[in-house]
Amino acid sequence: LTDKVISEDRVVARLKEALGAGAVLTGAEIPERNCADETRLSPSRPAALALPRTTDDVSAVLRICHETGQPVVTQGGMTGLAAGAHPLDGEVALSLEKLAGVEEVDPIAGTLTARAGTPLAAVQAAAEEAGFLCGIDLGARGSCTIGGNVATNAGGHQVLRYGMTRKNVLGLEVVQADGTVVSSMNKMLKNNTGYDWTQLFIGSEGTLGIVTRVVLGLHPKPGHVETALVAVRDVSAAMALLNRLETEFGGGLLVFEGMWREFVAAAVERIGLSMPFTEEHELLVLTEVSASAERTSDVLGALMEEGIVVDALLARSGTDSQRLWAYRESVYDYGRFQTTFQGFDISIPRGSIGAAVDDLRIMARERWPDFLHVVFGHIADSNLHIMTGPTHLDQPMTAADKALIEEGVYEVVRRHAGSVSAEHGIGRTKRRWLGHSRSPEELALMRTLKTALDPKNILNPGRVL
Amino acid sequence: LTDKVISEDRVVARLKEALGAGAVLTGAEIPERNCADETRLSPSRPAALALPRTTDDVSAVLRICHETGQPVVTQGGMTGLAAGAHPLDGEVALSLEKLAGVEEVDPIAGTLTARAGTPLAAVQAAAEEAGFLCGIDLGARGSCTIGGNVATNAGGHQVLRYGMTRKNVLGLEVVQADGTVVSSMNKMLKNNTGYDWTQLFIGSEGTLGIVTRVVLGLHPKPGHVETALVAVRDVSAAMALLNRLETEFGGGLLVFEGMWREFVAAAVERIGLSMPFTEEHELLVLTEVSASAERTSDVLGALMEEGIVVDALLARSGTDSQRLWAYRESVYDYGRFQTTFQGFDISIPRGSIGAAVDDLRIMARERWPDFLHVVFGHIADSNLHIMTGPTHLDQPMTAADKALIEEGVYEVVRRHAGSVSAEHGIGRTKRRWLGHSRSPEELALMRTLKTALDPKNILNPGRVL
Repeated sequence: LTDKVISEDRVVARLKEALGAGAVLTGAEIPERNCADETRLSPSRPAALALPRTTDDVSAVLRICHETGQPVVTQGGMTGLAAGAHPLDGEVALSLEKLAGVEEVDPIAGTLTARAGTPLAAVQAAAEEAGFLCGIDLGARGSCTIGGNVATNAGGHQVLRYGMTRKNVLGLEVVQADGTVVSSMNKMLKNNTGYDWTQLFIGSEGTLGIVTRVVLGLHPKPGHVETALVAVRDVSAAMALLNRLETEFGGGLLVFEGMWREFVAAAVERIGLSMPFTEEHELLVLTEVSASAERTSDVLGALMEEGIVVDALLARSGTDSQRLWAYRESVYDYGRFQTTFQGFDISIPRGSIGAAVDDLRIMARERWPDFLHVVFGHIADSNLHIMTGPTHLDQPMTAADKALIEEGVYEVVRRHAGSVSAEHGIGRTKRRWLGHSRSPEELALMRTLKTALDPKNILNPGRVL
Repeated sequence: LTDKVISEDRVVARLKEALGAGAVLTGAEIPERNCADETRLSPSRPAALALPRTTDDVSAVLRICHETGQPVVTQGGMTGLAAGAHPLDGEVALSLEKLAGVEEVDPIAGTLTARAGTPLAAVQAAAEEAGFLCGIDLGARGSCTIGGNVATNAGGHQVLRYGMTRKNVLGLEVVQADGTVVSSMNKMLKNNTGYDWTQLFIGSEGTLGIVTRVVLGLHPKPGHVETALVAVRDVSAAMALLNRLETEFGGGLLVFEGMWREFVAAAVERIGLSMPFTEEHELLVLTEVSASAERTSDVLGALMEEGIVVDALLARSGTDSQRLWAYRESVYDYGRFQTTFQGFDISIPRGSIGAAVDDLRIMARERWPDFLHVVFGHIADSNLHIMTGPTHLDQPMTAADKALIEEGVYEVVRRHAGSVSAEHGIGRTKRRWLGHSRSPEELALMRTLKTALDPKNILNPGRVL
C-alpha cells in the first residue's frame, strides 16, 4: 500500500509540474461531480483530478501516466449510464471540462469544430446561430459533452434522420495512450487516404485514446415540422407505417418513437395524463415529419383508410405537440411512485421486435408479476428501452431482483440476436453481458486493437473489455 | 529463385488440396481479367488464382498463406484505378467472383445481405425489386462488386444524399489475415456493444482483412426527380446555391455536380454537344432534386432573382434530362481526341475549391499550355476530378509529362489541405503521395493497425502503406 501511495504521489507531483498546481486536484479538492456519473453507483474519489486546458496538456498527462503505468479514467459531462467515467480506486481522472468551446463554424463547408469538453447544447446553439442543425441530440444535452458523445457514439432522438454520432463526425483529434497527438480535422465528405483511423476511436469509450477536438458535419434546418400520435394494431403495423412514412416523406421523417400499451397505461394511471384515444391500443407511435399540415393529414388519412393506422392525433399547435410529447416523456416522472428501478437500453432487429416484446411480457408476468414493466423507445432504430420497477413507493426492489431481471432481459436479447447496448455503451456495468451480442472472435479482435493502441492498459481499464 | 518456385509450388498444392483443383488456377489457366485492373498498368500474372466459393474457402486460403508467409492480392470487379488489385510478381490472387449472390432483402429491417463478389448492379436490382434504393452508385456498377465497394469505401454519384459506402454498411463478415472469420452481420441502426471493428475494414483496401459478406442499410426510393443545369458566376455562388437547395429541399437534394468553363467548352468544341446557354459561364452545376417541377421551378426562379443563379435549364422530360447529363458524361468520350491522359481524383475543402481551381489553372497555363485541362466533379462532396491530356490524337503525352503534372496537382492539394484521394483509394499508385494528406503520426497509427492485424504483411502488401 505504501509503495502505491508513494508512486501515486510521484505521479501527482509530475502532473502538477506539467499542468500547474491549480490544474491537478487531490483529496477533498476534487468536486463531487468528478466522483460519480449517472449510473447510480456509490461515489468514488480518484487519486487525482487533472484538468487540462489544451491538447498539449492532455498529451502531457498521458505521457506521464504511460511512463508510470498510471491508470486514467476520462471524464466529460458525467452523464453516462454504464459507469464508463466513474472513477475506480487509484485512477487519475482526466476531465475535459476546461478544454471547451466551439472553435469555428464554417458555413461553406457546413462544418463545426469544437473542443471535446464543449457541452452538446453549446454545439447545437452555435450550429443554429449559423443557420444549421447539429444532427446529434439527446436528453442530457445541457451537461453531456461533444467529446463524450463521440467517445460513446451517442444516439438519441434524431438517429433515424441523422444517424448516430459516428455519422455526424468528419474529423477528430485524439491523444493516444503514450501522449502522441494524432489529428485529422477533416472537413471533406470524401477523403479516402488510407485507413480512416478516426472510426476506431468513435464509440470506444475512452479505452483507445482521448478525443480532444471534433469536426462535425452540419445539416440544413428542417422546415415546418408536424407532430402526430398514431395508434397501430401491433409492431408489424408500426413497421408498415414506418416504411410508408419513409417513402412518403423521404428525408423528412424525423422522429418515430414507439410506446407499448403498458407504457401508455402508466402515463395515464400513474402520471395522470389524459387517455390519448378513447380506446387502449397495443402500440402508439409518436412521429414528426418535416412537411405541411395538409400533406401530413392527407398521408395519415390514407393510411387509416388502408387499415395500417387505427387512430391518429395531429398536433394543431406547439402546445398540442408538447401534449403529445408528454406521453413519451412521462417516464422521467416515475420517481413519483418508484425509488428504485432497473432500466435497459437494448436493440432488437426490427423484424423481431414484436416477438421480443412478447417474450419480455411472458417473463414479466410469470416471474415478476408485482412489478411494473414498460417498453418504449426509438423503434425505427431497433432501439427499445425497458423500465422495470415497483408500482408504489413502499415496494422494495432488491439488488437480487435487479440482477435476475437483468439476466432475463439479456437472455431475450441473445435469443433475438439483439444488442445489450443500443446507445448507452458497455462501460463497466455491461461488460459481463458483452458476450451476449459479440462472438469470441469479435472479442479477440477488440482485444488485439486494445493491446495495439494501449499496450499498458492505462486508458479506462476495466471498461468495455 | 529455385527455392521460391518450390515454395510457391507447395503453396499451390496446399491450396488445391483445400479448395479442389478446379478452384486454383496457375499459369495460362489464369484469365486476363485477373492480371490487371483498370489502372492501365501492364498486365501481370499472379503465381496462382484462388477462386473460393464460400467464406470457409477464403479462410482456408488465408490460413495456408499466413502459415507460409505467402502474399495475397484480393480481387473483386477489377475496376480499381489505383492498382490495388493489380497482382505483383509472386502473389496469390484471391478473387471473390465465385462468392457472389444476394442472400436476403429484409423489408422490415430495410437491409440487404450480399456476398462480397456480388456486382453492385445486382445489389441495386435486388433492392429495387423489394421497393428500396441502394445508397451506393458509381459508373462501374455493372462490373464492380459490393465487397470491393466496401474495401475501398467507394463514393460515386449519390454521396451527397446517402454518404460514402461506409455510411451504407450496417454489418460485415471479414476473414482476418490468419484465416479467422469474424462476423457482425448487424441489421440494427443502433448497436453500441464494444468497438465497431467493422469500420476498420471499410476503406482499408484489403490490407487488413478480406470482406466476405455485407449487410447494407437500404433507403426509400425517392419520388419524382427533377434535373436542372444551372449557371453560376463562381464557386462562391455555387456554394450559396448548394446551401439554399439543401435548405429548400432537405434530404431531397440528390445530385450537385460542378463543371468548369474549360470542361463545358471541351464538351461543345471537341465532343460536339450544343452550347447549353447563349453565353459561356465560369461554372455550371448539374443538380437533381426529389420535388415537383413546379416547386423546383419556383425555387430556381427565386434564386435567379436573388442573383445566386445566372441562368438555368430545367429538364422537361426524361430525354431532356439525358441531354443535360450528356455534358457531365462528355468526359467519357475524350478517347475521340486523346490516346493518353492523366486523371485525378482529389478533394479540396469546399471553402478553398475556388482558390485551388485558380491555382490549377495558373499552373496549367504556365507549364502545360499545350494540353487540355478540365475540372469537374462532385463539388458538394469536396471532390474534384481533373483530366489533363493532349488536345488531338497525334499529340504525345510522355510518362515524364504525367509525373510532372501529378507532382504539380498534388502540390496544390497539399497547399489547400486537401486529399490526394477522394474516392479512388491509395492502392499502389498513390502511396508516395499519402504524406501530402496525412501526418507522420497518422501514418504511424495506420502502421500500428496494419502490424496488429496482419503481422506477416501478407494482405495486399505494398498497397496503401
